[in-house]
Amino acid sequence: MFENKDTSRTSISQLGEFGLIDHLTKNFKIKHETTVKGIGDDAAVIASEKDQQLVVTTDMLVEGVHFDLSYMPLKHLGYKAVVVNLSDVYAMNAKASQITVSIAVSNRFPVEALEELYAGIETAASIYNIDVVGGDTTSSTTGLVISITALGQAKKDNIVYRSGAKANDLLVLTGDVGAAYLGLQVLEREKQVFKVNPKSQPDLDKYTYIIERQLKPEARQGIAALLNELEVQPTSMIDVSDGLSSEIIHICKNSKVGCNLYEDKIPLDPQVIATCEEFELDSTTVALSGGEDYELLFTVSTEDFPKIKGNPHLTVIGHMTQESEGMHLITRANTKIPLVARGWNAMKED
Amino acid sequence: MFENKDTSRTSISQLGEFGLIDHLTKNFKIKHETTVKGIGDDAAVIASEKDQQLVVTTDMLVEGVHFDLSYMPLKHLGYKAVVVNLSDVYAMNAKASQITVSIAVSNRFPVEALEELYAGIETAASIYNIDVVGGDTTSSTTGLVISITALGQAKKDNIVYRSGAKANDLLVLTGDVGAAYLGLQVLEREKQVFKVNPKSQPDLDKYTYIIERQLKPEARQGIAALLNELEVQPTSMIDVSDGLSSEIIHICKNSKVGCNLYEDKIPLDPQVIATCEEFELDSTTVALSGGEDYELLFTVSTEDFPKIKGNPHLTVIGHMTQESEGMHLITRANTKIPLVARGWNAMKED
Repeated sequence: MFENKDTSRTSISQLGEFGLIDHLTKNFKIKHETTVKGIGDDAAVIASEKDQQLVVTTDMLVEGVHFDLSYMPLKHLGYKAVVVNLSDVYAMNAKASQITVSIAVSNRFPVEALEELYAGIETAASIYNIDVVGGDTTSSTTGLVISITALGQAKKDNIVYRSGAKANDLLVLTGDVGAAYLGLQVLEREKQVFKVNPKSQPDLDKYTYIIERQLKPEARQGIAALLNELEVQPTSMIDVSDGLSSEIIHICKNSKVGCNLYEDKIPLDPQVIATCEEFELDSTTVALSGGEDYELLFTVSTEDFPKIKGNPHLTVIGHMTQESEGMHLITRANTKIPLVARGWNAMKED
Repeated sequence: MFENKDTSRTSISQLGEFGLIDHLTKNFKIKHETTVKGIGDDAAVIASEKDQQLVVTTDMLVEGVHFDLSYMPLKHLGYKAVVVNLSDVYAMNAKASQITVSIAVSNRFPVEALEELYAGIETAASIYNIDVVGGDTTSSTTGLVISITALGQAKKDNIVYRSGAKANDLLVLTGDVGAAYLGLQVLEREKQVFKVNPKSQPDLDKYTYIIERQLKPEARQGIAALLNELEVQPTSMIDVSDGLSSEIIHICKNSKVGCNLYEDKIPLDPQVIATCEEFELDSTTVALSGGEDYELLFTVSTEDFPKIKGNPHLTVIGHMTQESEGMHLITRANTKIPLVARGWNAMKED
């Protein structure tokens, strides 16, 4: 989907700040009636749909901290920067509709590099049906910083917070987890190999899924509609950005409940299992702490179990308990060990 | 209003990312009924007031580009970062109500430094009656980056765009211009003096106004209410962030009109005139290209002239013409010279 092409280099100063914004956003089309005014004034103007509340979320990605341009193509980076924000909107059970995009960039980036970045942003905006309504482009002394704010709307009664889970509710996960973290491990390894032997031709065929999960993750746009169709209103919801265990703990703390998570229920892709064996990593640790999966984690009342049972997009991975019972992982050997929050940053430092 | 105090140093890693956000935002109070959910979930939730449209704007400030911490106290920086965003909301003739704050910060900043920054953000939020509803805190490889998104609301018919000016409309400015740029020149000069002689005790008494305009600017919160009271609906509006001439050109291009700006009408503070003499700078050039004044520039129909005439907050500085007549400065000597857009960045490079 994304290819790199050789292009000539135009320096940012040739266009100037205003010229640059105009140039980068000239292909962006407005798709939503609620977008009254997009880029081009002091602020964007957005109309509220009737009886809807607005959800707002923001995320900042920093070169050298959240991404490494030696293996992250700029087009993928633009795409991912949008997706991670939309994921937060979907985690409120809301529909995403607008984003603003601010970038700080050093002059080592030519205009053509920013065009790649914005092409990725535009692709994501097109696929997820989002209007880019504003932003800021500025110089930076070093590196690239991307800050995106996403806006969405939902009916008041449909919005799902982290705080509504009740004891006995079922804990449900979309898709599978751990792949994005392992994709990063493969990419980091290849980077080291490349440093030693720049002529090496890596064979990454057996890692396609996990690398794509790292470089071009998708947000769970369709889950709100699926749940609506199944007539299931989640009692709490969060997206899996920092790692499954960390997100479960957020729901438990915000909802004042405990949890039993079953190790044998955690959905893992076969590539995750195979790569964990190759890297001699414990797949459950990777699944719990890996992060960047952008799946949705939510709780539903046990009454709703028949509605979700057997759905290929949803896996029941545990159930909530009284707060006093604590938060636990029930292992395959049927031992009960406390859940601890270890995001992927923490894991990397080990 | 702002004082620095010596404090011990706590490293950011001692608190961790989640601990840091909780710590920095624990004193922030929610003031608006429309803020349904602030910090603490995947996204903030905001209710729309009846018949209101939402305005959204975002700005990014980068260390070494937009601010220099050798003379910009962190508390002032936090304050200014909020103000520059609110200014864009007010420039839509809207009421600002919420902001999100994202920062990227290197570990050379102790937690106490971030507390200072957030104290400034909180002070601005309190003075301008704003809720801080979300944000992101992340590490950076170098320096400090602050990205703020501001949200506001206004009745559809009250929102003022850059595009509504008509030929013969009067061009009106709040306050005065040029001071923030000159304040920066004084601070830059003192920084150089300090480098040569660190024991020098600068006497900055005669620069208090221009330095305050640079370090702690205010946004024109009250103008929407003033215009409403005077029963004046501007035909176009913009805030003066890049420089008066640049903003006039934005209005002209968006409204497809020309303009005559009268040099002798441009409001200058006496400190601006005195400091221009001292620095041997042309005060009109400084006023036109200085930027960072955060005044509002707007156009009104000539019929509204009696309503604004003599108002101490408002100065008529020119009038709009047919587009074909072009954009001009009418000098004190009554010569007509074309207006050119030169933001403060451009001026610095001269």
